[in-house]
Amino acid sequence: MEPILFYGVPEGCSFGSIVALEWTGQPYRLCRIQMPEVVSGEAYRRINPVGETPSLMTEGGEVISESLAILNHIGARALDGGLAFPQGSREFDRLNAMLAFLNTSFFNAFSPLWYALEHGSEGAEKAALTAYGQALAAKTHAQLEALLGGRDWLLGNRRSLADAYFFGIARWADFHQAVDRRDYPGLHTLFERLRDDPAVRFALAIEHEEAADSTGGFAGHVGLEEALQLVRAAA
Amino acid sequence: MEPILFYGVPEGCSFGSIVALEWTGQPYRLCRIQMPEVVSGEAYRRINPVGETPSLMTEGGEVISESLAILNHIGARALDGGLAFPQGSREFDRLNAMLAFLNTSFFNAFSPLWYALEHGSEGAEKAALTAYGQALAAKTHAQLEALLGGRDWLLGNRRSLADAYFFGIARWADFHQAVDRRDYPGLHTLFERLRDDPAVRFALAIEHEEAADSTGGFAGHVGLEEALQLVRAAA
Repeated sequence: MEPILFYGVPEGCSFGSIVALEWTGQPYRLCRIQMPEVVSGEAYRRINPVGETPSLMTEGGEVISESLAILNHIGARALDGGLAFPQGSREFDRLNAMLAFLNTSFFNAFSPLWYALEHGSEGAEKAALTAYGQALAAKTHAQLEALLGGRDWLLGNRRSLADAYFFGIARWADFHQAVDRRDYPGLHTLFERLRDDPAVRFALAIEHEEAADSTGGFAGHVGLEEALQLVRAAA
Repeated sequence: MEPILFYGVPEGCSFGSIVALEWTGQPYRLCRIQMPEVVSGEAYRRINPVGETPSLMTEGGEVISESLAILNHIGARALDGGLAFPQGSREFDRLNAMLAFLNTSFFNAFSPLWYALEHGSEGAEKAALTAYGQALAAKTHAQLEALLGGRDWLLGNRRSLADAYFFGIARWADFHQAVDRRDYPGLHTLFERLRDDPAVRFALAIEHEEAADSTGGFAGHVGLEEALQLVRAAA
């Protein structure tokens, strides 16, 4: 049985895992999880007790949570493609460092902005959380621009899973009007290059329920109830 | 040459990497980085351009940033001890998922509290950031208590690098009076068990510049200037 990725919409950080799966070319299916309703519901919590997307049900029927673990799992099955690297290598460390920066500092710059939105913050609370989020967004964009160091991709000369993950987070700057990405020319160029990537276009179309052309191994959607049956059967 | 861990004080999240190094038993040295002064200074930025601790200079002279990448590097060199696991295994995924939860959700619950402290926030701003941080701390403690699921260690029956990392973050709940850990009995028990661990006691003594007994391979401190020379020589 092919792996099933549970991805959240709208604007989910699962986006990077969809792109990563497409890039590997290996077969997979998708299960769409509406946020915040379904992701926090009882059914999905049997997949992911923390109530977050993404989750990945592996070929072997195990369920993995957390983007960083899922991307490391996808990478471990695609070491020959240059998207990820063997444990113990210098490149393995560099990819993990970049993924960790994206998953902590960069991702979390937007957390107060999401929180203010989802909790309907108003007045002084909204002002404080917005100022805090915008300060973090500006700081982490400047840091990431420095880490990119004028190169084409986050790890240098070729794309890796870090670039797949980057796009799904970076777009939040537009959604929240947190920074103007053109102030960070390297990140702006990287973002625009990724926007033209077939896997990124596919993932955007999937999110918006538009006609989506897979150039990887996408084998269709599965409903949450059916996915739960598969997880139970594998347990 | 043995690896050098650059660890931040006071209360650094580098703590988990010190414990991890002790647990492996392999030789290493430490370089002490005062926060916020030295960590944001020009000299240290030649080690870590983002100006954060920890960093690890490896045996081969490469510098790794981000706790998650450093712990994965340490783990890859100590696969026979059960602290970490081979790439591609089920346990590799489980460890990465737990480390990612700790490094993102759990760690970042405290970020607004640190920010309010370090930026001297007052009035409505301080109130909003404090309320936000305390809400996240309560939520993520409850989530982690559920993930622990009544077992002895975060991954189950034996300690792993996740437990090493947990302690250095969890103590921030006391520092910021964010939650009362006794409300989470599994986490409370785990925390107290770790407090008695020789490597945790060693790392606490190192942080406080008290007499520290290594039960691992600690080979002494190195100054930042000397470390910089070693990094330059290796480049």
